[in-house]
Formats: sequence, structure tokens, C-alpha cells
Amino acid sequence: MSVSPGTTLRELRERKPLVHQITNYVVMNETANATLALGALPVMAHAREEVEEMVALAAALVLNIGTLSPHWVEAMIAAGKAANAAGIPVVLDPVGAGATRYRTDTARRILSEVDVTVLRGNQGEVATLVGVAAEVRGVESIAAADDAAELARTAARNLRLVASVTGAVDHVSDGERVLAVANGHELLASVTGTGCMSSAITGCFLAAKRGAPLEAAAEALAAFGVAGEDAARDAKGPGTFHVNLYDALAALDPATLDGRVRIA
Amino acid sequence: MSVSPGTTLRELRERKPLVHQITNYVVMNETANATLALGALPVMAHAREEVEEMVALAAALVLNIGTLSPHWVEAMIAAGKAANAAGIPVVLDPVGAGATRYRTDTARRILSEVDVTVLRGNQGEVATLVGVAAEVRGVESIAAADDAAELARTAARNLRLVASVTGAVDHVSDGERVLAVANGHELLASVTGTGCMSSAITGCFLAAKRGAPLEAAAEALAAFGVAGEDAARDAKGPGTFHVNLYDALAALDPATLDGRVRIA
Amino acid sequence: MSVSPGTTLRELRERKPLVHQITNYVVMNETANATLALGALPVMAHAREEVEEMVALAAALVLNIGTLSPHWVEAMIAAGKAANAAGIPVVLDPVGAGATRYRTDTARRILSEVDVTVLRGNQGEVATLVGVAAEVRGVESIAAADDAAELARTAARNLRLVASVTGAVDHVSDGERVLAVANGHELLASVTGTGCMSSAITGCFLAAKRGAPLEAAAEALAAFGVAGEDAARDAKGPGTFHVNLYDALAALDPATLDGRVRIA
Repeated sequence: MSVSPGTTLRELRERKPLVHQITNYVVMNETANATLALGALPVMAHAREEVEEMVALAAALVLNIGTLSPHWVEAMIAAGKAANAAGIPVVLDPVGAGATRYRTDTARRILSEVDVTVLRGNQGEVATLVGVAAEVRGVESIAAADDAAELARTAARNLRLVASVTGAVDHVSDGERVLAVANGHELLASVTGTGCMSSAITGCFLAAKRGAPLEAAAEALAAFGVAGEDAARDAKGPGTFHVNLYDALAALDPATLDGRVRIA
Repeated sequence: MSVSPGTTLRELRERKPLVHQITNYVVMNETANATLALGALPVMAHAREEVEEMVALAAALVLNIGTLSPHWVEAMIAAGKAANAAGIPVVLDPVGAGATRYRTDTARRILSEVDVTVLRGNQGEVATLVGVAAEVRGVESIAAADDAAELARTAARNLRLVASVTGAVDHVSDGERVLAVANGHELLASVTGTGCMSSAITGCFLAAKRGAPLEAAAEALAAFGVAGEDAARDAKGPGTFHVNLYDALAALDPATLDGRVRIA
Repeated sequence: MSVSPGTTLRELRERKPLVHQITNYVVMNETANATLALGALPVMAHAREEVEEMVALAAALVLNIGTLSPHWVEAMIAAGKAANAAGIPVVLDPVGAGATRYRTDTARRILSEVDVTVLRGNQGEVATLVGVAAEVRGVESIAAADDAAELARTAARNLRLVASVTGAVDHVSDGERVLAVANGHELLASVTGTGCMSSAITGCFLAAKRGAPLEAAAEALAAFGVAGEDAARDAKGPGTFHVNLYDALAALDPATLDGRVRIA
């Protein structure tokens, strides 16, 4: 399938898919609002008692381990299995994998028990999960584009999923191809939860463009990056940038989006 | 008692009632800030260990089941009973009732164990709780004003409370009368938690205008709708609208409010 | 060590210390964004399974009891002990101490089991914890500057820590000296979580200026107050003020900050 974020965005706004998010306390409001602004419908539900029923209503599931605790982990795994059974795509955002054993172990456990469609993380998190953490952390050069592309490819191959590794330039790979996404703005790093938003938006794009997770994941990052560029225009700092980001997501124009994305 | 949101708002700002909210993770910051902006004082507390003591300090209690889990349900019921014992009004926002059995059952359980003053929900949620869910969902025409008014009246009669059913036009009923509130703006639907904010503000108005829950609930929706209209004026999208909403709530003028509300 | 918030801020932005925050659901996003805007790195983690490991990576720990429950209390105490063992400064924000027994008892328990570096609270909260609550609450005059200074000194002496008591004028004491901080703006009281932000920023300053908690705590309040003054300039109400506050924190200029602070 070809890369066309404009087409996917148009489809998304017509269908308004429900995107079930089990995410962290810090960014729940933000990822819900980013999902709504883009044109999809968010639903947040984490109780073991209801996650399987809720995920059955959804078109995608986003799991984010930003503020873990045991009940939440069980709910994430139950929801993930239900999503797999229903054939719904699953995004995993392994926030902080590598920082504590609990996070690393939980991310690994989800990867082993759930069939994850897209793993969306930063270089350190993804490197940890492919087991090249020690090596990676010792060298700053991992930030260079070539290494990040290789990291994405290795992660995709070893974990058998689409790896979406974000950084100054993002790299998305299915183990064979690697798409590099150069959209974005440095102010995105000044607001907490923009990484989590990119994972939520990845879920939205997966819901709108089924059967092509590599392309959908790259399109999501490109579209979010373009919104970041627009949001930066009149921003006076991280506060106004954050507010503008929702306006910019809502104002993304399917007709012009393809001409603005930088995917190579 | 006559309908006068301006009078109630003036009273609220003089007395600054404490409004205890047990609400969902997604909107806690937002409902607290809406409460503060309006002129009341929010307090968020959910531990079984303290809810009864906290509610005893409050002038209203708002229960919102947006992100449920078992401990929270127990705390909501304990707080609700304590509010009843103290004669404090209780608002229930049955977020997602009808979407999962857990939510429907929890909303029903709260309604059966707690004497709820005002049930504030959308048409699907309220219809689920009066048991006309199947019928209602099959027909889109429930969105028409006549049906929504009837739904509010039926809910109020069957559940013995004031039903506050929000939509393009809101309908508030005590089982006899129905007040239709036509204030608001479509951008309210572009920000997550505006429904929850309307429930929080309903709690604020109930605290300020005791003994007239029908009027207070309609006034709350009208005042919030007027703030939405004001917030939309310079908004460039959902982000700036959201920010403007707090400014607009704080700027609501008791002297002019009655002339701007559209309650029929 | 002399008082120079500009010097500490410059140091903070160069070192970008990691500040571990175990805080309440209402303000997590806000304190994380305030920390980022200032120039430090926030991390939110509350699971008993990981707090000790996380705190070992951090340069300061901030505990905030705004939305308590038993698991969180255990995690706070474990994290606090780990911070003590590692020699990392600990800030306690006893939100709502005095309002319910659970909050008062929890704040006291943390104070007895953890070596708290700075206690940052309002006058009612701090008075409760020094045991002068009954007396204090009966008299409104506690709001007067002289009494607040004395309260800070007494709290610092009795609890053997630096007491940072915020109000119209803030008072910070180590039991001997009292620094009065007159920066700030009344709009800070119109947004929920600004007290919690001041505690988070206290943690940031403690991380950047080691070994001088009295000065660091006063500098933090002064810097935050200056940002509040800047944020108020173009604000149209609590919504725009809140957004401007992050812009203003990011725009704080180390070169001019010392000339703007009012610390006596």
C-alpha cells in the first residue's frame, strides 16, 4: 500500500474510529484530546472488569506503561489478548523501559503475551527491548540516523512487529524496509506526553488504514510532526505550543498533507 | 423557585462552596479548574479511608464513573451515603453506561444505594439506565428534541430524581416539568471532559441554590453553555477553545447572565 | 550560601536534573510540564515495585499527598527512605493535612519515617502538622505576615527541616533564619495545582543547589512567583494565565532573575 497520510486522515475523519487507550495518569487528558482533535474517538478504560468488553467496541488498542502498577498490567494484557482475538491492531508504548526493571519486564511480558502490531518508543526504550541496551547506552552515536534506522530494523525483525523509533528523525521498519520521517519540531520535546500522543495517533492511523502497519505508523508520525510544525509557528513557549498543537491537529488538511510530509 | 442563573452565580461566588468530586483520571484537572474558574472550591479525594470525612466538609458531591475500578466504586458509594446522611446534594455522571456491563451495573448500583439528586448524562447513557437502551440505540431519532424531552421526563419519574440529559439541546426534568436549555457551542464536543465539567458545574449550582434541583441543574447547563459560546469567539480550534473556556467561566457576569440564557 | 535564583537556574538548565515525583492525579501533567518548562526532567512513578530503583536515578524526590490511597502511601515511604539512603533531597507537600484524619496521619507518618528536607505547604497544612491547628484555625490573623513567619520558624524547629509556608507572602525557615518571598500574583490561586507546582519546582531547585535547602527553597518560590507575574501580564483569565505560566517558566532569564526577586 502506498504512503498517503492525507488519504488515511480523510478516511479516519469519515469513520471516526474508537481508539481504546490504557495509558498513564500523566497524559490521559492529553492523548484523549489529541485523538479527538485529529478526528477519532478516544475511550479510556482500565478496569480488569471491563477492558475486554471495551476493546471489542474499538478499532485499535493503545497500551502505554508510563505509570504502571500491577492491576493495570493485568488489564493491559487482558485487553491486548482480546484485541488479538478480535483482529484489532495493538500499539505498545514502552515508556521508561530500561529505566527500571519493572518497566523493562512489563514491556517484555506484554510483547511475549500479546501480538503487538506497532512498538512506538524512543531509541533507549527500543534498544532495551531488543537487548542491545548496554551497548547502545554506552555510545551517544546511537542518535545518528544510520544507527537509529538499523535499530528500528533489528527491533522489527527480532520482535516480529513494526518498530516505530522516534527521535530527531523517526525511523519506522517492518524488518525489511525502513521509512525515515523528518517532520516535527523541537518544541515537541518541551511538553510532557508528546511521545504518548504520537503513540495514540499511531493507533488512530492503524484503525483508519488497516493491513499496512508500516505505512500507517510512518504516516501517523509524519502527520503529528506536521501538526507540531504548525503549532510552533505562533508559539511563545511550551504552554502556547501545547495549546496550538490541538488546534493544529484539528486543522490538518487531508488535501495538502501529502505535500508536506517528509517520509523517505 | 424561579430560574435565575445570575442570582445563583452571585450566591456561589459569595459563598464559595466546597464541591467534593470523585471523578475520572482523564478530567480531574479540568473539572477542578472549571469549578475554580466558576468561583467554587473543588476537592478531589477518593480513598475509602477519607471520603466520608471529606464529604462532610462539602456542600455538594459529584460522582463520575469515567475510569472505574472496584476501590473507587466502594468509595463512591460510601461518599454518596455520607452525602445523603448529611443532606448534601449528589450528582451522578454515568460516563459510558451502556458501553460495558461494568459501567451500566455500577451506575445502577449507585442509583439504588445512593439517593442521587441529579443524574447528568447524554441520551445513550440515560436511556440505558431507564431500560430503554435497546430501543433508543436502534433509532437515531432519539436525537430529536421531542424524544429527548420525553427521555428526561421518563428518567426523572422512574429513577425519582432530576434527570439532566445533555445534547445539542439539553433537557432537564423532575418528572413533571421539562426545561430545555439551548445554550452551548459545537466546539464543546471537540474537547474531552466537557460533559464531566457540566456535571461538576451542576454540583456547584446545586450547592449554591439549595432546594430547587430542577432549576439549579438547568441554570448550570445554561451558564456553562454561555461560557462555551464566549470561549468559541476567538478560538482557532479545540486547543484555544479549551483554554478560553476557563477564562469565560471566570468572566461570566451575574448581572447579564439571565439575559443570555435560553431556557424554555 | 548566598541567595541567587539566577545562578541556581543556570546550573539547573545545564545539568537537567531528574526529579522523581509521586504526586496526585489532579496535577501530574501540570507539575511534569512545569518541571520541563523550567529546564529539569520530571519522572512520575508510583509503583511499590519500582520507586526505589527510580529514585536512585533521580536528583530529588517530591512527595505530594493530594489524592491518597494506601498503596501510594507505602510507595511514598519506600521512595522517601531510598532517597534518604542515597542522600537525595526530599520535598513533602502535605496537601489537605488538617482536612481529614487520613491526610494528617499520612503526612505525620511520612515526616516520622522519612527525613524530609523541605516541607512545602500552606499555613493551615503546616499549622496542623506542628500541632497548632486548633489555635491557628480559630484566628484569621494567622494570615498576617508576622504570624506566618513565626509559623515557618516553629515548624522548621519542631520538625527539624526547612519549612516553606506559602501565602500572599511566602515564608521559608530553617528554624533560625526566615526568608520572606514577596513574588507572585493572585491569579496563581485561580488555577488548581499551582501549589503543587511550587513544590515540584522546589525539588528542582534543591537538585540544582545542593547543601543549601533554605536558600534553594526560597529561590524556587521567588522564581515561580516571577513566572506568575510574567504569566499574568497578557492573561485574560485563569485559562490563558495557566498556559502563559509554562511559557513564563521556560522564558525565565538567569541573567535578570536576581534583580526581580523580592526575598527579604
